Amino acid sequence: MENSAGDSHRRRPRRRTAAGAVPGTLIAAPGAAKTNVEVIAFGPDGFERIVLATKELATFTTSYPAVWVNVTGLADLDVLTSLGTRFNLHDLALEDVINTHQRPKAEEYDDHVFIVARMPLRNNFSKTEQLALFVGGTFVITFQEKPGDWFDLVRSRITENRGRIRRSGADYLAYALLDAVVDSYFPVIEQLGEEIDKLETFILGDNSGDALERLHRAKRKLITFRRAIWPHREMLNALMRTDSLVFGDTTQVYLRDCYDHIVQLMDVIETDRELISDLFDIHLSRVNLRMNEIMKVLTIIATVFIPLGFVASVYGMNFDRSVSPWNMPELAWRFGYPFALGLMAAIGGGLIYFLYRRGWLTRDEGNHRRSAPKSRGR
Amino acid sequence: MENSAGDSHRRRPRRRTAAGAVPGTLIAAPGAAKTNVEVIAFGPDGFERIVLATKELATFTTSYPAVWVNVTGLADLDVLTSLGTRFNLHDLALEDVINTHQRPKAEEYDDHVFIVARMPLRNNFSKTEQLALFVGGTFVITFQEKPGDWFDLVRSRITENRGRIRRSGADYLAYALLDAVVDSYFPVIEQLGEEIDKLETFILGDNSGDALERLHRAKRKLITFRRAIWPHREMLNALMRTDSLVFGDTTQVYLRDCYDHIVQLMDVIETDRELISDLFDIHLSRVNLRMNEIMKVLTIIATVFIPLGFVASVYGMNFDRSVSPWNMPELAWRFGYPFALGLMAAIGGGLIYFLYRRGWLTRDEGNHRRSAPKSRGR
Amino acid sequence: MENSAGDSHRRRPRRRTAAGAVPGTLIAAPGAAKTNVEVIAFGPDGFERIVLATKELATFTTSYPAVWVNVTGLADLDVLTSLGTRFNLHDLALEDVINTHQRPKAEEYDDHVFIVARMPLRNNFSKTEQLALFVGGTFVITFQEKPGDWFDLVRSRITENRGRIRRSGADYLAYALLDAVVDSYFPVIEQLGEEIDKLETFILGDNSGDALERLHRAKRKLITFRRAIWPHREMLNALMRTDSLVFGDTTQVYLRDCYDHIVQLMDVIETDRELISDLFDIHLSRVNLRMNEIMKVLTIIATVFIPLGFVASVYGMNFDRSVSPWNMPELAWRFGYPFALGLMAAIGGGLIYFLYRRGWLTRDEGNHRRSAPKSRGR
Amino acid sequence: MENSAGDSHRRRPRRRTAAGAVPGTLIAAPGAAKTNVEVIAFGPDGFERIVLATKELATFTTSYPAVWVNVTGLADLDVLTSLGTRFNLHDLALEDVINTHQRPKAEEYDDHVFIVARMPLRNNFSKTEQLALFVGGTFVITFQEKPGDWFDLVRSRITENRGRIRRSGADYLAYALLDAVVDSYFPVIEQLGEEIDKLETFILGDNSGDALERLHRAKRKLITFRRAIWPHREMLNALMRTDSLVFGDTTQVYLRDCYDHIVQLMDVIETDRELISDLFDIHLSRVNLRMNEIMKVLTIIATVFIPLGFVASVYGMNFDRSVSPWNMPELAWRFGYPFALGLMAAIGGGLIYFLYRRGWLTRDEGNHRRSAPKSRGR
Amino acid sequence: MENSAGDSHRRRPRRRTAAGAVPGTLIAAPGAAKTNVEVIAFGPDGFERIVLATKELATFTTSYPAVWVNVTGLADLDVLTSLGTRFNLHDLALEDVINTHQRPKAEEYDDHVFIVARMPLRNNFSKTEQLALFVGGTFVITFQEKPGDWFDLVRSRITENRGRIRRSGADYLAYALLDAVVDSYFPVIEQLGEEIDKLETFILGDNSGDALERLHRAKRKLITFRRAIWPHREMLNALMRTDSLVFGDTTQVYLRDCYDHIVQLMDVIETDRELISDLFDIHLSRVNLRMNEIMKVLTIIATVFIPLGFVASVYGMNFDRSVSPWNMPELAWRFGYPFALGLMAAIGGGLIYFLYRRGWLTRDEGNHRRSAPKSRGR
Repeated sequence: MENSAGDSHRRRPRRRTAAGAVPGTLIAAPGAAKTNVEVIAFGPDGFERIVLATKELATFTTSYPAVWVNVTGLADLDVLTSLGTRFNLHDLALEDVINTHQRPKAEEYDDHVFIVARMPLRNNFSKTEQLALFVGGTFVITFQEKPGDWFDLVRSRITENRGRIRRSGADYLAYALLDAVVDSYFPVIEQLGEEIDKLETFILGDNSGDALERLHRAKRKLITFRRAIWPHREMLNALMRTDSLVFGDTTQVYLRDCYDHIVQLMDVIETDRELISDLFDIHLSRVNLRMNEIMKVLTIIATVFIPLGFVASVYGMNFDRSVSPWNMPELAWRFGYPFALGLMAAIGGGLIYFLYRRGWLTRDEGNHRRSAPKSRGR
Repeated sequence: MENSAGDSHRRRPRRRTAAGAVPGTLIAAPGAAKTNVEVIAFGPDGFERIVLATKELATFTTSYPAVWVNVTGLADLDVLTSLGTRFNLHDLALEDVINTHQRPKAEEYDDHVFIVARMPLRNNFSKTEQLALFVGGTFVITFQEKPGDWFDLVRSRITENRGRIRRSGADYLAYALLDAVVDSYFPVIEQLGEEIDKLETFILGDNSGDALERLHRAKRKLITFRRAIWPHREMLNALMRTDSLVFGDTTQVYLRDCYDHIVQLMDVIETDRELISDLFDIHLSRVNLRMNEIMKVLTIIATVFIPLGFVASVYGMNFDRSVSPWNMPELAWRFGYPFALGLMAAIGGGLIYFLYRRGWLTRDEGNHRRSAPKSRGR
Repeated sequence: MENSAGDSHRRRPRRRTAAGAVPGTLIAAPGAAKTNVEVIAFGPDGFERIVLATKELATFTTSYPAVWVNVTGLADLDVLTSLGTRFNLHDLALEDVINTHQRPKAEEYDDHVFIVARMPLRNNFSKTEQLALFVGGTFVITFQEKPGDWFDLVRSRITENRGRIRRSGADYLAYALLDAVVDSYFPVIEQLGEEIDKLETFILGDNSGDALERLHRAKRKLITFRRAIWPHREMLNALMRTDSLVFGDTTQVYLRDCYDHIVQLMDVIETDRELISDLFDIHLSRVNLRMNEIMKVLTIIATVFIPLGFVASVYGMNFDRSVSPWNMPELAWRFGYPFALGLMAAIGGGLIYFLYRRGWLTRDEGNHRRSAPKSRGR
Repeated sequence: MENSAGDSHRRRPRRRTAAGAVPGTLIAAPGAAKTNVEVIAFGPDGFERIVLATKELATFTTSYPAVWVNVTGLADLDVLTSLGTRFNLHDLALEDVINTHQRPKAEEYDDHVFIVARMPLRNNFSKTEQLALFVGGTFVITFQEKPGDWFDLVRSRITENRGRIRRSGADYLAYALLDAVVDSYFPVIEQLGEEIDKLETFILGDNSGDALERLHRAKRKLITFRRAIWPHREMLNALMRTDSLVFGDTTQVYLRDCYDHIVQLMDVIETDRELISDLFDIHLSRVNLRMNEIMKVLTIIATVFIPLGFVASVYGMNFDRSVSPWNMPELAWRFGYPFALGLMAAIGGGLIYFLYRRGWLTRDEGNHRRSAPKSRGR
Repeated sequence: MENSAGDSHRRRPRRRTAAGAVPGTLIAAPGAAKTNVEVIAFGPDGFERIVLATKELATFTTSYPAVWVNVTGLADLDVLTSLGTRFNLHDLALEDVINTHQRPKAEEYDDHVFIVARMPLRNNFSKTEQLALFVGGTFVITFQEKPGDWFDLVRSRITENRGRIRRSGADYLAYALLDAVVDSYFPVIEQLGEEIDKLETFILGDNSGDALERLHRAKRKLITFRRAIWPHREMLNALMRTDSLVFGDTTQVYLRDCYDHIVQLMDVIETDRELISDLFDIHLSRVNLRMNEIMKVLTIIATVFIPLGFVASVYGMNFDRSVSPWNMPELAWRFGYPFALGLMAAIGGGLIYFLYRRGWLTRDEGNHRRSAPKSRGR
């Protein structure tokens, strides 16, 4: 029962700018995190990590062929406008950086591509944050909402010169970052899959009412993830179809790989969706079967004992035997009482036989609390 | 339980012209609002707000490069015909202005584009009105059904010269108006989302029968909004794909942004739809679980007390002990009564143990009125 | 409960020609109506209404540039073959005229276009008839199944020279007829919408079992209308995409308008479909809620009175107090009876308190017959 | 309850060749029917029916421009290989002739087109057999699984020279055969439609449990037919789009007509599907309504008589009136008994009034066995 | 109840490489099987089977025009890197070989095509393993996860020179392997179809609660198979559309055949899906019908005996007849007791008649345990 306020929040993209406001207006979100700028410039021969103040952003230079400017926290709008001026970024794109409820997408501008992605938070899988990327010929600028990301391995690939990243320029770096984002969903989806497996065992084994709420929570998570992951596919597709010169042919092959991962994720999500919906149906059906079981017990008891009670009541009537020999003569029989008991036994036995013939005395399999769940062999 | 007559009205587009009538016939709607015309002419250097009588519409001139004619209320058909003649508007388009149940769409004519959009009313989110736009090289003509719109910020952008609107001509103004229309749906959808959240808490917490009607109302609103919003996507798409020279390249970028907002809205609406449908299923399932609970109580009471009542009835029979020693000798035992009570206690205890073994005496979780909803942590 | 045999009939297109028969074989339908031919020739300068016998059809001439041959009733096959020869119509198209269960479609032949549409009957909205049109450069030939159509206004537009119809040739006439057909669905769909609104009020207010059959009937109508209307969209699309020279550029604009109307109709139908399906779910849920209510009453009564009855039975046992002081001494207590009544009152009160705590004594809202439906504010 | 083993069999295409076997391997199906070859050669001037032994197939000649080789029964593989060699048929196509569970499809080879269709058996509509066609410039070769087909009218069109078939060559013959196949489904679908109509009357009128199995059988048939019919659409589409010279322009027009028939069939099938699914929902709902009715009777009886029984039990208690005036003094009242009866009448009356107010004593319409179904007017 | 851990495992593709790792990193899976390499070189004139050590892979030569390197077990990464270097395979493709949860796909590289397929295990149909193929002009390299495959017939076609495989080069070999993979699904799907048939008989005949779990298991298998089979379609499509020179025109025809098989499989799977869903609905409905039956028995018993019991209780009241003639005079009637019995018989009879009129004493067909299932004729 973790706090899912994040979901609710994400569900409703509040636009801070009123309807009709100037597009490209930059207004910082109320709770935006403190801004940190990290600059890594690199080339085949080496790299440098530069620490820059906000005002230096507009003028810094580097001799390396590729530079990655990573901005974490969106409180300081000056950083955005400085970078926007320096790298000639479009106003509308900058507005989207600030409005952190964008759908993942890729937009081509004259000399750069603007990409929006979403990644799960490291410390809370059920929330996602927006990652905005500007990719130009020699630069990648990333904007994250909060500190903490999935890029440490990318950083170390640059600093320790592993793989082809240092040799391959800005477009490959952008790919590497997107790939890290996509791969970050795998543990998230895996965790959800495990939850669903547990639910399956739970519902198939022992149908407690709490299942309903757990199913709803799982489904809700699934909807959230699907909504976050699905548009990445479109975004990567757009990057692969684009005529832009930003992403070279070599990197295209890698984008295709990244695209495959997204398709794989969607595949799992669709399967999970079908499973959840199936489990819901099974849960519903179990509730009905249980009702049958309950009703059967009631019916058996009532069917057997109500007629018997009637017989006993008859012999409890107070007709005056002294007035007439027709009035309840059996009460005065020598074996009246054993006869009455026998009559009741016969009626009871008959009714039980009738119920037995209907198959109501044998229990439906699959309908009872399983006392030995391990025998299910799953 | 607000008045949703608006919905019903919107649901059925009544055509005032009979089948087979001349297309382009203009017949004012019975309840059309009084017509007001507001003209704003503007250019990079300034603007003027001209007040014109209906007959002046056909002849007024302005030195500014762009003019916005905003007509509010559709009662006065002369205004339409004057403007139609003056700006060479197509008859079919003018007919659509009057028939205010058009789907949002964009139609290209020789020298202008005709756009239909729908926007929620400012004072009643659950109703929408039609906004018809004619966009030419130097003019934008808008027709609104009722007074009150979402364009005040656009107006002040012109009058106070904020942003690029004064510099950018009629096509940018048209974009600005469409953007205001699209953005006006965000608070509407947000409000609906909050209603759904409340319903979720309500249904998961405490299943009162009233939920059904609230779910239906929410779903109905959703259907209405979806129907209003969805075709805007197509409309913007048409504007972006059009070869028309009306919308310049610079404005195209902005249209794409507007298109993104629509996609975002649809995304939220689809999610809400899935949530409502899920909540409906959960509601149904809760009703069933409740029935189980009710039946269980009935079954427990009946199972325990009907057999006991039978035993008591047996000892209430009036067999004549004086006739024969076989007739109910236990009534004369020294400890007959305690024995009978003990027998009943034993039977009752046995039945309770049987029910306990079946797990019917423990309550299903998730099935009871939660007395401490805050513990749910949402 | 009107006769819906029409629906059933329409549902199953019986082919009168056996499998393998020569295509283009003309066999009159058994119940085909008597054939009437009405010819209207017209041009910008005037019009004439010619009455022709069947044999004259092959040879009549007119000086007007456009001619409309309107055939009502399909019993007389000679009319078809005469017209077929005269206007060079394709055999397969003529066969489709006779087999009146065609889907609406448009087929291009060398020098004419063959169009099939369906229109509701004027006197029975729940049935439709087939309208077949042949449109050539200078002629429109229409075939209707039965007398009575929606074209009176089109006729008077020709005779009274209203609108551009006299100036615009055969293609515009064909458009005008199709537009009349499409517009004829609006009152039909409106009527259905009103039925659904009534059903909504009915189901939300007071859940009588009859709702089920009414829902089914409404759904069935909807399916029928959807099946009739939907293919018109495709047909108009084909006419708009066609390279044929039959429909000129000017008329294309009007076809687009007609297409919009179809889309609008489909929009309403889809919304109605969702509403009906929602109402069905709500109906089902109401039935379940009602069951809960019924079970609750039963459970309350049984839970309270079965234990009380048991207590009373105990004190009705006939143990012989004279034999032993252990046998039912309470019967001889001074306040035995009041004690017993008190005991029963206590048990009854306790059970009622238990049920009250469970919330079963308060009625679910939304579950009862609403005595004041007007308070719902619709 | 006819034998539907045919369905089950068809459902699972068993491949006789093991995974990895040489493609094009011909192995006769175990139960294949005895092979018969019928050859009809024809031209505008006449026709001849040639009877050929298997070994003659490879060498026979005819002076007529078109020849139809119709093979019935697939037991004799030599026939296939002879024809394959003679007409240069592809191995893979021949393998598909033998494996009679192909989906309908059209495949283009260098100088011929291979078509697979399915047609219902003449004597058992619920089974279909495969029809394989090879169509070349001057020949049509057909392979049927079993004797008996829908082609008698086609044969007589050749022999009696009706229509254009003798003048039109092999491609028109192929069309004529496909058209006969498609048209053979109309009576099948009509029969199913009548079954569904009966089911509708049955379910709306009187809800017997057997409905479930009949619905399932109807749905299963529908699934089978849809699966058989649907791919014909694709197949005809492929034939119409093909660049192959086999089907000439004149025949293309006829193929379009055939395509329309398929679309018409699918239309009916989709409608039937919706109807069946709707009927299923209604059946389910009826079952629930019935349960309500049953529960209501139980509740009414129990609610009225359990409290009354309690009152009677109270006055059946044996408190000793002689001990104390507090012990059941009412037993000795002069009008004690009438008072008790009156009390019971009052309680019973009150309860009945309470139930009446709840509306439980009036029966839900639509819920009872209709004794006068004709009044439903269908 | 076999172990379905395989399913669960397959459902969640775990990526062994962390998010952000260098793409193309090769890390052996923990439980990877021991690696075996089998090399078969062949040509029209003969073949040789070469046994190679890992280090020889980089350098071995053969005089035959085509070579098939089949690697079983993925524990030894050196084999991969050797082959990768020798045949110039792409790093990303090699990574996919190791990550054995790829979706089936085909990727074109400069001089080879990389294909991923999945095939069911020979000894456990409910699990699948990944088959990776690299196809170049003169080589096919396959990687299997585990020993045991479906290729024995392909091997013998090479060694025994059956069919055209020896003459046709590497692309035909690749086709032959893919065809074997696709055909291996037929027995799997057939087995599942038989399970569903059994379930159908089971559910239609005798509704035991266990059906639910069996339905769920069948559905789950279906989802798994669909997920495994479906992407093969896309993969084959990609191979057929590719411009690559690897697959020649002759082989394309065969690929089309293979594609058809996949479509056939999907067809069966979709039909099975509909059947399962239908069976689920029927199962649910049966549960409800059963409940009706149970409730009816309860209602009949209670309706008849509760009023009778009440009458008996009335005559069991102890009003003192000696006090007043009004107190239960019937107890002293001469025929009081027979009258009482008669009264009860009349009431009971009346109630039974009432129930009979409602049709509740006749049993619903289709609702009882069928004692003679063979009479169902299926």
